Amino acid sequence: MGPSDVEMICLHRQEMFLEAGGDPEELRLMTQHFRPWLEKRLADGRYYGFKLLDGDQAVAAIGLMSIDWPPHPSHPTQDKRGYVLNVFVQPAYRRRGLASALMQAADAEFARRGISFAVLHATRTGKPVYEQIGWAGTSEMAKVISATDLVFTHGTEHKR
Amino acid sequence: MGPSDVEMICLHRQEMFLEAGGDPEELRLMTQHFRPWLEKRLADGRYYGFKLLDGDQAVAAIGLMSIDWPPHPSHPTQDKRGYVLNVFVQPAYRRRGLASALMQAADAEFARRGISFAVLHATRTGKPVYEQIGWAGTSEMAKVISATDLVFTHGTEHKR
Repeated sequence: MGPSDVEMICLHRQEMFLEAGGDPEELRLMTQHFRPWLEKRLADGRYYGFKLLDGDQAVAAIGLMSIDWPPHPSHPTQDKRGYVLNVFVQPAYRRRGLASALMQAADAEFARRGISFAVLHATRTGKPVYEQIGWAGTSEMAKVISATDLVFTHGTEHKR
Repeated sequence: MGPSDVEMICLHRQEMFLEAGGDPEELRLMTQHFRPWLEKRLADGRYYGFKLLDGDQAVAAIGLMSIDWPPHPSHPTQDKRGYVLNVFVQPAYRRRGLASALMQAADAEFARRGISFAVLHATRTGKPVYEQIGWAGTSEMAKVISATDLVFTHGTEHKR
């Protein structure tokens, strides 16, 4: 994958989140900010991956990154973990194992780069596919940081 | 927090994973690799956070980072998310809300830095604490990348 794949990846990411129930207006806003982020990382190789072509049409693709991470019991001697993102298969090409094939290529690429532990965030439809090929849920938790919290830093002790 | 906190943070991280059932030998190996990783990031401010002192003894601490992340439906205009790590309270100081107080300080610090979405990985004992203050599980999945996968990249089609 390279700089010429920007629009394909942007489209895949937007479609993926749309199918997962995302808001179209919000996803367009996301893509406006994702595109320049991606351009830089495709250009310097921080974002890599594979696409599957039918003729000259990309019908499926997978994005990969090696992300900075503190050495951890799952990778005690390494300060990197793999990240898989933007896995997308065109609807007409589903249910024939293309996502699993791309995931196998991802495993091999991570191994080639010396990465021993990888993570991803699954959509509801992706989860069973990943479970079948050895991926399991983690203990990650998330929180939206509200502006209310900002009040605290500004010195008032008034709890909301 | 600054460079002088390296050993405290290393100890907290090791104790945290030890209490979660980690292997002591493996954790010592992790710390050997974590220490230089941390030193760089404390020195340049990529790793920040808070500690709570009783007299001059640090009895609890929390680590924070602003990590590079693609713009996402949870933060469509931002290419950063907050990360919370190495939350630790000395055993004698537990069950009096210190972890929650540190998490509140983290929220405020993230908000001050303009970060609107944050993640962490919870231990089994940490999870209920975080749930009470608005954190919820994500769809993250993980996989150990095995050396077997490497065979695939080297051109053999022999499936193992």
